[in-house]
Amino acid sequence: MPLELSVGVDIGGTKIHFALVDAQGKLYADEQIPTEAIQGAAAVMERTLQGIERMLGLVDRMKDAVVIKGIGIGSAGQIDFASGSVAYAVDTLPGWTGMRIQARAEERFPDLPIIVDNDVNVMAVAELRCGAAKGLRHFICLALGTGIGGAVVENGRLVRGAFGGAGELGHVSVDFNGPQCSCGNLGCLELYASGSGIARLAKEEAASFNDSRAVMQAWLQGDAQASQLMNIAIAALASGISSLIHTFNPEAVIIGGGVAEAGDAFLSAIRRETQKRTSAAMWKAVELKLAAAGNVAGVKGAALQLWHYPK
Amino acid sequence: MPLELSVGVDIGGTKIHFALVDAQGKLYADEQIPTEAIQGAAAVMERTLQGIERMLGLVDRMKDAVVIKGIGIGSAGQIDFASGSVAYAVDTLPGWTGMRIQARAEERFPDLPIIVDNDVNVMAVAELRCGAAKGLRHFICLALGTGIGGAVVENGRLVRGAFGGAGELGHVSVDFNGPQCSCGNLGCLELYASGSGIARLAKEEAASFNDSRAVMQAWLQGDAQASQLMNIAIAALASGISSLIHTFNPEAVIIGGGVAEAGDAFLSAIRRETQKRTSAAMWKAVELKLAAAGNVAGVKGAALQLWHYPK
Repeated sequence: MPLELSVGVDIGGTKIHFALVDAQGKLYADEQIPTEAIQGAAAVMERTLQGIERMLGLVDRMKDAVVIKGIGIGSAGQIDFASGSVAYAVDTLPGWTGMRIQARAEERFPDLPIIVDNDVNVMAVAELRCGAAKGLRHFICLALGTGIGGAVVENGRLVRGAFGGAGELGHVSVDFNGPQCSCGNLGCLELYASGSGIARLAKEEAASFNDSRAVMQAWLQGDAQASQLMNIAIAALASGISSLIHTFNPEAVIIGGGVAEAGDAFLSAIRRETQKRTSAAMWKAVELKLAAAGNVAGVKGAALQLWHYPK
Repeated sequence: MPLELSVGVDIGGTKIHFALVDAQGKLYADEQIPTEAIQGAAAVMERTLQGIERMLGLVDRMKDAVVIKGIGIGSAGQIDFASGSVAYAVDTLPGWTGMRIQARAEERFPDLPIIVDNDVNVMAVAELRCGAAKGLRHFICLALGTGIGGAVVENGRLVRGAFGGAGELGHVSVDFNGPQCSCGNLGCLELYASGSGIARLAKEEAASFNDSRAVMQAWLQGDAQASQLMNIAIAALASGISSLIHTFNPEAVIIGGGVAEAGDAFLSAIRRETQKRTSAAMWKAVELKLAAAGNVAGVKGAALQLWHYPK
C-alpha cells in the first residue's frame, strides 16, 4: 500500500514552513522560506503556492510509493474556516485580510482537498493527534509568541464561535484598569505574558534588557531585576489561565510558542502560581503541559487536518 | 391530543420553585416554598420530592387532558449532568454536595424521565428555547445574583468541560492583583459585579448603603457616590464580558439575575463600556441583552430540558 502524505503549510509573519506529513504526524521533508510580507499579500500567496508545488514535485518522482491526501494550511490571523479565507490579519501580514487562501489554492490544485484554519487551531490539532493532548476531549492551547494566540477544544471539537473568531485568548483581560490594548480593552494578557508584553514590562520598569529573550535568559540565571519582571508576567499569565480553567473545566492547558521555550523552569513557575489561583476541584482535573509538537506544531497540524476533518 | 407538560423544579439557597410547563415554556401552575436549607440536605431533598408530588397531584384530576413528559430539575451548585448529582455546592445549601438528586427522584417517580442540571445551564435552555437566545447557536448567559453564575452555549451545545464544572464565569479574574476570592484567584468578577460584590465595593469605600439594591437604586436616581461605585462595577463587568467575547465569539451575551433587574439603564451602561473594550469585528457579531425569561427562567428551563434532551 502506498504511503499517504499531506502537504502542510504554516504561514507566519516572518516565515512560511512547508512539509510532507503522514497520518502519525511524521515529517518526510520540509522547507522554510522567509515570508517577505513587505512585498504584499499577492506575493505571499504566490510564494505559498510555489512552495506547495515544490513539495508535490518531491513526490512526483515516487508516484507508486506515495499518494497525496491533500493540502492543509495554517495561517496567522483570524480565518473563516468555512471558506478558508482571512477574516482579519494584523500588520505583520499587510493586505492579508480578505485573502481567499483556500479558493486560490483550489484554482492551482483543483484535484486535491484543501483545508485552511488559523495557526493556533492547527497547533491544537497537532497536539490532539500526536502531542500533549493525545486522548483528551477538553483542552486549551496557549501560544506565547510575539503576541498570544489561543485555541480551545471542548468535547472533542474546536470552539469556533459565530464567525470563527473564538479563541483570542491573548485578549482576556487580567486588569480592567490596566494599559490600553489595541483590541479596545485594558490590561489584556498579551500585554504581560507575550514576548512583546515582557519587553513592554521591561521598558516600563526602565530595565536594561533588549527584548523578552534577554529577560527570560537573565531570569533563568537568577537576576533580581529580571525576576521582578517575570513575577509580574507569571502572575498575570497564571491569573488568565485560572480564569480559563474556571470557564472551560479543561483536562489540560498546553503552553507553546517562543516564550515557552524557557522550558521546565517556566512551566513550574506558572504551575505553582496557577494552582494557588484555582479552586481545588478544577485544579485536580487539569494538567499544565508544554506543547509537545514544538516549533513544527504549525506545519504538522496544518497537514493533519486532512485526517482530522474527513471529507 | 392531550397537552404535554413537564414538572420544572428550581432549587436555590432561599427558595424552591415548582411549575407545570409546556413545550413552549408556558407555565400552567407554579408554587414557591422556602428552601429552609438550614434543616439540612435530606430535608431539602424531601421538600423537593413532596413539591413534585403536589404538581403531579394537580394533573391527576385531569388525566385525559394532560400527559406528563417528565421531571426537570435545576439546582444551585456544580451538577454532574451525567449522574444528576451535586459535585459541589457552597454553604447556602449545607450538605448539598454529593446529593444524588436524580437517583433520589427516580426512586420516588420510577415511571418518569428525570433530568438534572445546574441553575444557570437550565436558564440557558430557557433563553434558547423561548427567550432572548431563540434561534442562536453561540451565546453566553451571566446570572448576576448574590454571586455570578455562567453558562455558555457553543455551536448549539452547552459547554460542560471535563466533569461538568465549566461556566464558572464569576471566577474570571478582572484584576490579577485584586482582592482574594474564595476560589483561590485574586480579583474575580464576582467580587465587583454581583450583589455581594457591589456591597463589598460600598463597604470598601465606606459608603452609606445597606446592600447592592440600595446602591443600584441610588445610582438610578443619579447619586454621586453610588455612581462612583457603579462605575467600578460596570467597568469590571464590561472587561469580563469583553474577555468572554474574545474567547467565545458569541452572537449574544444574555444578562439575568437580581442585579440585572435594574433593567435598561444598567444594560445601556454595560453596553457602552463593553463596546469600548471589544474589537470592532467581535462587537459587530454580538448583541448584549437582558434575559427574557426573567425570574421564572430557572423553573421554565428546568422543565424545558425534557424537550431539549430527547431521551
